[in-house]
Amino acid sequence: MSRPALLDLLPDGVAVADPDVLAAYRNDHAQFCPSGTPAVLVRARSVDDVVTTLRWAHANRVPVVPQGARTGLSGAANAIDGGVLLCLEKMDRVLEVDTEEQLAVVQPGVVNARLAATVAEHGLYYPPDPGSRDISTIGGNVATNAGGMCCVKYGVTADFVRGLQVVLADGRVLRTGRRTAKGVAGYDLTRLFVGSEGTLGVITEITLALRPATQRPLTAVAFFATPADACRAVAHHLGAGHRPSVLEFMDRPTVDAVSAMADLGFPDDLGAVLIAQSDVGAGAPEELRAFELSARACGATDVVVADDPAEGELLMRARRLVGHAQERLGATLVDDVCVPRRRLAELVEGVARIAEAHGVLMSCAGHAGDGNMHPTVIFDKSDPAQAAAAERAFEEIMRLGLDLGGTITGEHGVGVLKREWLARELDETALWTHHQLKNSLDPRGILNPGRVFG
Amino acid sequence: MSRPALLDLLPDGVAVADPDVLAAYRNDHAQFCPSGTPAVLVRARSVDDVVTTLRWAHANRVPVVPQGARTGLSGAANAIDGGVLLCLEKMDRVLEVDTEEQLAVVQPGVVNARLAATVAEHGLYYPPDPGSRDISTIGGNVATNAGGMCCVKYGVTADFVRGLQVVLADGRVLRTGRRTAKGVAGYDLTRLFVGSEGTLGVITEITLALRPATQRPLTAVAFFATPADACRAVAHHLGAGHRPSVLEFMDRPTVDAVSAMADLGFPDDLGAVLIAQSDVGAGAPEELRAFELSARACGATDVVVADDPAEGELLMRARRLVGHAQERLGATLVDDVCVPRRRLAELVEGVARIAEAHGVLMSCAGHAGDGNMHPTVIFDKSDPAQAAAAERAFEEIMRLGLDLGGTITGEHGVGVLKREWLARELDETALWTHHQLKNSLDPRGILNPGRVFG
Repeated sequence: MSRPALLDLLPDGVAVADPDVLAAYRNDHAQFCPSGTPAVLVRARSVDDVVTTLRWAHANRVPVVPQGARTGLSGAANAIDGGVLLCLEKMDRVLEVDTEEQLAVVQPGVVNARLAATVAEHGLYYPPDPGSRDISTIGGNVATNAGGMCCVKYGVTADFVRGLQVVLADGRVLRTGRRTAKGVAGYDLTRLFVGSEGTLGVITEITLALRPATQRPLTAVAFFATPADACRAVAHHLGAGHRPSVLEFMDRPTVDAVSAMADLGFPDDLGAVLIAQSDVGAGAPEELRAFELSARACGATDVVVADDPAEGELLMRARRLVGHAQERLGATLVDDVCVPRRRLAELVEGVARIAEAHGVLMSCAGHAGDGNMHPTVIFDKSDPAQAAAAERAFEEIMRLGLDLGGTITGEHGVGVLKREWLARELDETALWTHHQLKNSLDPRGILNPGRVFG
Repeated sequence: MSRPALLDLLPDGVAVADPDVLAAYRNDHAQFCPSGTPAVLVRARSVDDVVTTLRWAHANRVPVVPQGARTGLSGAANAIDGGVLLCLEKMDRVLEVDTEEQLAVVQPGVVNARLAATVAEHGLYYPPDPGSRDISTIGGNVATNAGGMCCVKYGVTADFVRGLQVVLADGRVLRTGRRTAKGVAGYDLTRLFVGSEGTLGVITEITLALRPATQRPLTAVAFFATPADACRAVAHHLGAGHRPSVLEFMDRPTVDAVSAMADLGFPDDLGAVLIAQSDVGAGAPEELRAFELSARACGATDVVVADDPAEGELLMRARRLVGHAQERLGATLVDDVCVPRRRLAELVEGVARIAEAHGVLMSCAGHAGDGNMHPTVIFDKSDPAQAAAAERAFEEIMRLGLDLGGTITGEHGVGVLKREWLARELDETALWTHHQLKNSLDPRGILNPGRVFG
């Protein structure tokens, strides 16, 4: 292949065409998602680099895949044959933390945990905490509207985005939103780009709302004989008007996987656990007592309230190990269906039936307070029959999520992995609307073509 | 004029062409906004009526102005010559209140206060509380992304909209969003329609997130010698990490106007007041003590904490009287600029200078906690010189808001009144993006043409 012309338009070292380097950037963390052979990798250092790249790609009708740290789970950042990989991870500066207005302005490549730590030094709190927070970037979080454990009380990434700088398909630079707490001047362009998975523009700067730091949380853990009991406790507790800062679920296989890495001191006979936190300070013991009552009313076999915050932090670290613990057992295929809370028990029971029917190992954890669960198929990738069964089980869980009045994706996005399924969740008019919006902003279809919808 | 064909397509009584009836629906509450002579008024009873109307209007390229209770303050619901007024106020049913999932499904014509009262009977809370809440509809609130006093703690209308049913320009019915707490399947179409002021579709059903009922709030009022001192106290208090459930500002002319209607028992020599509330129950006295400290640190001459919630409710009723109190003094032209909180003091001082320069009476109240103020010019509409001066002062306040890093509209919307100003707040690329989105969904330009942008 001849030397791509884009290399000469960018500063030295920004663009590379070396196949060995390109190979390292071809895939995100999704399974079963094809990735093509890209022609160029651009590691943008500035908005100008992004503008140059898009102008060239627009003029030459070359597909561009924007990507951050490639920690996504739906293949949206995977390479396209002959296209440009436009990586934003080197644009990684926290440009501003404004304590008085409680906002931060960041470049897209800033890693979530670094931002959270930076603003914490200023007495502020950036809640969105996807499981990937130690390695994923804010740009990627915004592009997928990432969630996490905080959402039950504080909301998702979109709820913290006040404004964006976006480079449009033809290289023009758009500013959306505002720095002020409120504003209704024109359409909500910010929200249109949040969660659009790189199909409408390339995000180059983000203005984020922050919150005052919360109190160090107190933690409780409730043990249940069955996953369904735990799910009923979730619906009961939140339906009664409580708002814990965390309400997480782990089933028995998940607890076993984590226990192999860290001694949790949990009883042997559990079917599932719920972990609840309260960050309201003096009122926290009372909030956790209410949680205990809800759990016991739904059949909890025991409830333990951690006496000090450090114990709770250990427990949360264990919860955050789930992904690693599952990956030690095999390849993983992670669903992220989200259902109405009252249907959670049906969801976990249905997931168990699906696992049995397909003879696959299933481990289920999730943000139960939001109805957002991560049933995870664990399988041997080298065994084609197992891989095929895993894929079928993964898809049946999406069908179940839809049947229960939910969505195929609560926080991971559609990407390539769930593209065919988007058409089952949305109707024809909604898909038409997506196409119209996409065509209106990217008429040549160069931005992450074929992702999210066909 | 001949009998419009649309009348025969709709059920009896749904559409009328009687000029006397039409006249009553021609205007919203905005001043200085032209309204045309409409051909037909459709008072839709069902989605089918809306579909029929839009199909006909689309086929015949007739402009359609959607409207609710016409309480808007920017002229977005004003009639267009020869067009259809499509009024949704008769679609006024609360279709569902789901206590377990904490959501409500409503038709657009439900009045805000009625919804709030209905969900309160179920132990739930619908926070958005625009000043018009006793008379404005949820559909109108959604179409303008209305705010209110709750926003400083709970956010704006958009933050409570989970999903919509929207009739598109050509009469197709679109469903956006979801019932679940989270969901990222496709673009955030819901947010695109929220705040779009009737230019992208006609909202026929709304799924709203609710919150658990809060504790009955406690209230404090702080008195200041100058408006600037009060504004500094706002920035100081929120910058220190406090989150009152209400933080409202009234200047001296506003307090005087309200005092003429209700005895507030305020001291005679005040320059401005702040009203703060806390709805956190047992922690409320502590939150209000923190407010008192912030206020005194910024020069408050006195701070009074109401001993019981009833006193606070009287004070809030007084705050809600502001609009009526101002209208007793003359015609009013209400700005709703929103600035970063640290610029609030500059805003109120600048507004005073503008009032003096133009020789107009200015009364300023607002949602100071959000930086969202309502400087209100009060004038004699029958005096052309005064009216012209009022209009100039109104515009200079928008210029000031922009100069201070803010927005021309924090919660009232652009409509007709601020259309020319939108082009000063947004740049060319942002305006291009608006046009592209509008054209992609309403290629014939029949939906509220000429509103928001040109």
